[in-house]
Amino acid sequence: MRKPRLMTPGPAPVPEEVLLELARPVIHHRSNEAKEVITEVTAGLKEVFKTKNDVMILTASGTGAMEAATVNTVPPGGKAIVLNAGYFADRWAKICKAYGINVVNLETEWGHPVDPQTVENALKANPDAACVMGTLSETSTGTGHPVEAIGKIVAKSDAVFAVDGISGVGAMECHTDKWGIDILCVGSQKALMLPPGLAFIAVSDKAWAKIDAFDSKSFYFNLKTARKKAKEFDTPFTPAHTLILALRAALKMIQTEGIENVWDRHRRLSEACQAGIKALGLELFSSRPAEGLTAFNVPAGLKDSQIRNALTAKFGITTVGGQDKLKGHIIRVGHMGYTDELDVISGLAALEMVLSELGHKLEPGVAVTAAQRVFIGKPARA
Amino acid sequence: MRKPRLMTPGPAPVPEEVLLELARPVIHHRSNEAKEVITEVTAGLKEVFKTKNDVMILTASGTGAMEAATVNTVPPGGKAIVLNAGYFADRWAKICKAYGINVVNLETEWGHPVDPQTVENALKANPDAACVMGTLSETSTGTGHPVEAIGKIVAKSDAVFAVDGISGVGAMECHTDKWGIDILCVGSQKALMLPPGLAFIAVSDKAWAKIDAFDSKSFYFNLKTARKKAKEFDTPFTPAHTLILALRAALKMIQTEGIENVWDRHRRLSEACQAGIKALGLELFSSRPAEGLTAFNVPAGLKDSQIRNALTAKFGITTVGGQDKLKGHIIRVGHMGYTDELDVISGLAALEMVLSELGHKLEPGVAVTAAQRVFIGKPARA
Repeated sequence: MRKPRLMTPGPAPVPEEVLLELARPVIHHRSNEAKEVITEVTAGLKEVFKTKNDVMILTASGTGAMEAATVNTVPPGGKAIVLNAGYFADRWAKICKAYGINVVNLETEWGHPVDPQTVENALKANPDAACVMGTLSETSTGTGHPVEAIGKIVAKSDAVFAVDGISGVGAMECHTDKWGIDILCVGSQKALMLPPGLAFIAVSDKAWAKIDAFDSKSFYFNLKTARKKAKEFDTPFTPAHTLILALRAALKMIQTEGIENVWDRHRRLSEACQAGIKALGLELFSSRPAEGLTAFNVPAGLKDSQIRNALTAKFGITTVGGQDKLKGHIIRVGHMGYTDELDVISGLAALEMVLSELGHKLEPGVAVTAAQRVFIGKPARA
Repeated sequence: MRKPRLMTPGPAPVPEEVLLELARPVIHHRSNEAKEVITEVTAGLKEVFKTKNDVMILTASGTGAMEAATVNTVPPGGKAIVLNAGYFADRWAKICKAYGINVVNLETEWGHPVDPQTVENALKANPDAACVMGTLSETSTGTGHPVEAIGKIVAKSDAVFAVDGISGVGAMECHTDKWGIDILCVGSQKALMLPPGLAFIAVSDKAWAKIDAFDSKSFYFNLKTARKKAKEFDTPFTPAHTLILALRAALKMIQTEGIENVWDRHRRLSEACQAGIKALGLELFSSRPAEGLTAFNVPAGLKDSQIRNALTAKFGITTVGGQDKLKGHIIRVGHMGYTDELDVISGLAALEMVLSELGHKLEPGVAVTAAQRVFIGKPARA
């Protein structure tokens, strides 16, 4: 017997009751029933995103929402400031390049947070930038960025602030409106507890003004078309409707727990996981860890594949390694969405046993104990 | 008790065993298991599409595949010939317009097939056209187009032939390679018996030459990126992976029946449905009916909504009305994918009873009998 345990930073585990929604007979996507579901999930998404802005559903990966944010707000030949601090942040730059948008590439060393001061300087030097493109949780490095501080700076400029919240939203505190996020991009397969296939995009009035100012060369990802249909609780093209039905079930679970409590849970899980990793004598990769995943350096003398394959072989656990220049250097463990204290403890216990067997010196129980101390000692949220 | 019966021309009913695949725990999309599934479904799709060309999986509605076909083969300022014979064919023109592509708009009256001769003339008059964009089954009018004849004409030119096979493929005979279809676009929610959320695109060498000749302004729908990843049985961005697992189950069913037998079944269902409709004294809308759906004119003195609402209220049947200028004028009934003889007989029996109750004069049993005669009398495929 081997239980499968998905501990990757997306896709993340999907609750059984959400999976069962997907097994229901398909309904027609232009029926009244379908519109009621879109009405309900749109309200739920606004609650989770902490926004009164328009929220639209796209049938695409999260990258589709990033492309929609880009091509609709910055005309070809226009300028965007990319807060480039990881593999996925770099995707903003790649999308811009594909569409002939000039990029001011603000590079931050991978694993470190973007310094808001650099954003302020870049905006001063580039008052013609139409958009600042950042990331809430950089999945490739396990880093959380200071979106609130950056948002306040961008708000004072003419530029709009687009944030890739794909692996962040639901796992990390995020106040779209209060923090000045003009375009929030979210994916379904992370803390929203769905399989992949849907993306969501929230657009502020400031962003709509930019979008309405020119005719974007886009069709499938045209936000003006999406806005028009969203006002009728509809979508421009046939949506991945069974996933929208499942979204309703997932949102109900989030609403029952309360989004603030969901954030608290992720913070506890993150702190416990970090404590466990450190207790094993391992180093965290990020200087400002995200809360939906933990990235740690592969210990000297071992290969990432040895550790990850043993976790799979012995305990059915799937993790991911590093991407691009981090390949072989880090291991990333997800603890987002449908994940609780005992899942983190299980993951740490498995890691302990696997490392021990691979000859890494450690005291049995040390990681699990460190995590438990966090769970017991953590004071209630103020 | 009211059994739901989805008789719409997409989404079409999904077999229970395919739905149950969607309820399985999510696996990671970059795992070996995931690559094996992509390897298997790619081979299966090639069999169903009758092609040796590259087949790629997109996480999008079918429209996403049409956009990919357009933006990758025709540069901005280039020219495309659109075989515009319905609401969905017109989408080709709309996509072209959004991307600054010049359209030679070959209009055909809705409900009639495109005349191949007009395509030949248009190609002669526009030797600089990069692409001819057509449709296998026009869902808005229930019309099947002579794709084989058109393909032979386009093959003699420099242009590539892109075909919207979204509601056609699987329901109507389609030999991608033999008929000279350079780009075939297919959606998941029609005769392939899946929920919506995936699109497929098959690309010939002739089309790749056009695609490789310029840098398309595209990112999410960039076919060069998709080709590179498809060669590794992967996708550029997180795919709607649970739908790909379900696709494997659906393709197994199609392969077990045999695609030729699947086409035969649809032809029988289509002929039986047409016979039943005519026996009721109703008129078919199309002069060359498609085989996955039947469109008929709303009889004088009745409203489409009266008939369609009664079908839903009494028998749980969902149908669709007309789109755009056909709104209120026609009713469309789907019989594609997971549909058999008794489903068509049930639909006709319900229509008989509903029309009778609404005061339409008819002999009870006349439509059902006409359909049964087709099923009994139909000679075996030559």
